[in-house]
Amino acid sequence: MSLVIIGSVAFDTVETPQARRERIIGGSATYASLAASFFTSPGLVSVVGRDFPRKFLNLLKAHRIDLQGLRVKAGKTFFWHGRYEQDPNLRTTLRTELNVWRDFRPILPESYRQAEIVFLSNLDPDSHDHILSQLQRVKLVAMDTIRFWIENKPKSLIKAIQKVDILFVNDEECRLIAEEINLVKAGRKLQAAGPKIIIIKKGEHGAMVFGKNFVFGVLAHPSERVVDPTGAGDSFAGAFLGYLDSSARFTQREIRKAAVYGNVVASLVIEDFGPTRLLEAGQMEIIKRYQEIKKLVSF
Amino acid sequence: MSLVIIGSVAFDTVETPQARRERIIGGSATYASLAASFFTSPGLVSVVGRDFPRKFLNLLKAHRIDLQGLRVKAGKTFFWHGRYEQDPNLRTTLRTELNVWRDFRPILPESYRQAEIVFLSNLDPDSHDHILSQLQRVKLVAMDTIRFWIENKPKSLIKAIQKVDILFVNDEECRLIAEEINLVKAGRKLQAAGPKIIIIKKGEHGAMVFGKNFVFGVLAHPSERVVDPTGAGDSFAGAFLGYLDSSARFTQREIRKAAVYGNVVASLVIEDFGPTRLLEAGQMEIIKRYQEIKKLVSF
Repeated sequence: MSLVIIGSVAFDTVETPQARRERIIGGSATYASLAASFFTSPGLVSVVGRDFPRKFLNLLKAHRIDLQGLRVKAGKTFFWHGRYEQDPNLRTTLRTELNVWRDFRPILPESYRQAEIVFLSNLDPDSHDHILSQLQRVKLVAMDTIRFWIENKPKSLIKAIQKVDILFVNDEECRLIAEEINLVKAGRKLQAAGPKIIIIKKGEHGAMVFGKNFVFGVLAHPSERVVDPTGAGDSFAGAFLGYLDSSARFTQREIRKAAVYGNVVASLVIEDFGPTRLLEAGQMEIIKRYQEIKKLVSF
Repeated sequence: MSLVIIGSVAFDTVETPQARRERIIGGSATYASLAASFFTSPGLVSVVGRDFPRKFLNLLKAHRIDLQGLRVKAGKTFFWHGRYEQDPNLRTTLRTELNVWRDFRPILPESYRQAEIVFLSNLDPDSHDHILSQLQRVKLVAMDTIRFWIENKPKSLIKAIQKVDILFVNDEECRLIAEEINLVKAGRKLQAAGPKIIIIKKGEHGAMVFGKNFVFGVLAHPSERVVDPTGAGDSFAGAFLGYLDSSARFTQREIRKAAVYGNVVASLVIEDFGPTRLLEAGQMEIIKRYQEIKKLVSF
């Protein structure tokens, strides 16, 4: 087990102006793990309720995701209900039920404690230390966050950011945390706080990577079909870390490639509800789209 | 004279939260011509009033811009006054005085009528036919537009678009004209109307080029210093067309390179008020930044 992903596994109900899907598989760690599974065999640390269906567990297993870290607990699974507007960048959360997720204190199985890469996905920043203390030879600690923690635990969040190697944020989060409108300045400011690498996800505009001695930018796949953006950011991070884990070389060159894979996988996820399109597409389509991005930006 | 640029030459008063500049040189054709001047010697077609200072004319001449097409008329020069917010993407027009520009019907000097490339910059779409009828061997007709024509002459605008080879729009204009939120779909829709090439300028997010058999995307130079975005779009178009004119090959490869140059020149313009920074930077800095974009996107 060399990549461990810790975050939510959930039911999502998603509405768009065209359609609605009830209680499909969701959660940040679900998307990140499925995305990573195209590159490596990640370990998943999360909790679900007894209502979580076997078919969802089988789906995760079928994608080489290790479930030793997934606890099944009496109670109900995390539930999220959201709606996208005609402009898919506009999202309203209609309901969040934390359920068994509320008091989850992750305990890593013995076999996960040797992991080299860990992804702390949307977790309470105060829980990071407890998790990191269980890891014995971790080389890369990555995290992302959500607006809730930026607004409710800003100091804890900054402390958590200072301790990680890689921070994933979207453009809005980056500006909020850094309190700076200019995205390049905001990225640099977050980097000065500690992380070696800041990855700013910009949705339809692609992503920027700020490394110690380089900046890398990748354009999004030009997508005419945006159905459901849920999980795009989590998938970006999962594919990025999954690729790095498979490569095992944390060089600038590999980081650039990892960001393109993150970008490509996210571009597939948004083309249907849940992870459906990504799972149908598979590895061949990921490689094809990677080559398309190369053509897209070459001059 | 093989590139002719037709558009406004103006006085601009520009306010930002940090500073204010009174009656500096402005206008779409000014920016486009200065940008093009780093690649070729463009001809400028416009009108100014007798209040237009000699030092501004000398500035244009010093940059190899042919001024046979610039009429000096009794009256006052076009004047624009605008303010940018803390977020430089937000702009308010405080005052527009068309003055001598109001009734300007461009007459091309004899020497301009053999031009191969013409740029119709922000013109009344109803004036295009009159101009194009004066050109005897034009190969590439390019245009851009402004929100004013989209809202006030939508039908004339569509007719004008159908007759050009290259259309420059920003993301907002593209969505408005195409009546489509998804920018890729919007770009394709405009292309279906006639132009061989649609260039969508996305400000800090770079630009997209939709060609007949290809899509090209270029990221903006990661800019920490955005002082005054006025003229960035006009400069993009000017550098793009100036480069194509110097290359004289309208191939996919040259179009990609032209877009990168457009992007680079625009990134310099925004770093100070008016065209100041671009003119100080010069050709060496343009070439340097072109190489930086190459590094930025390579993987």
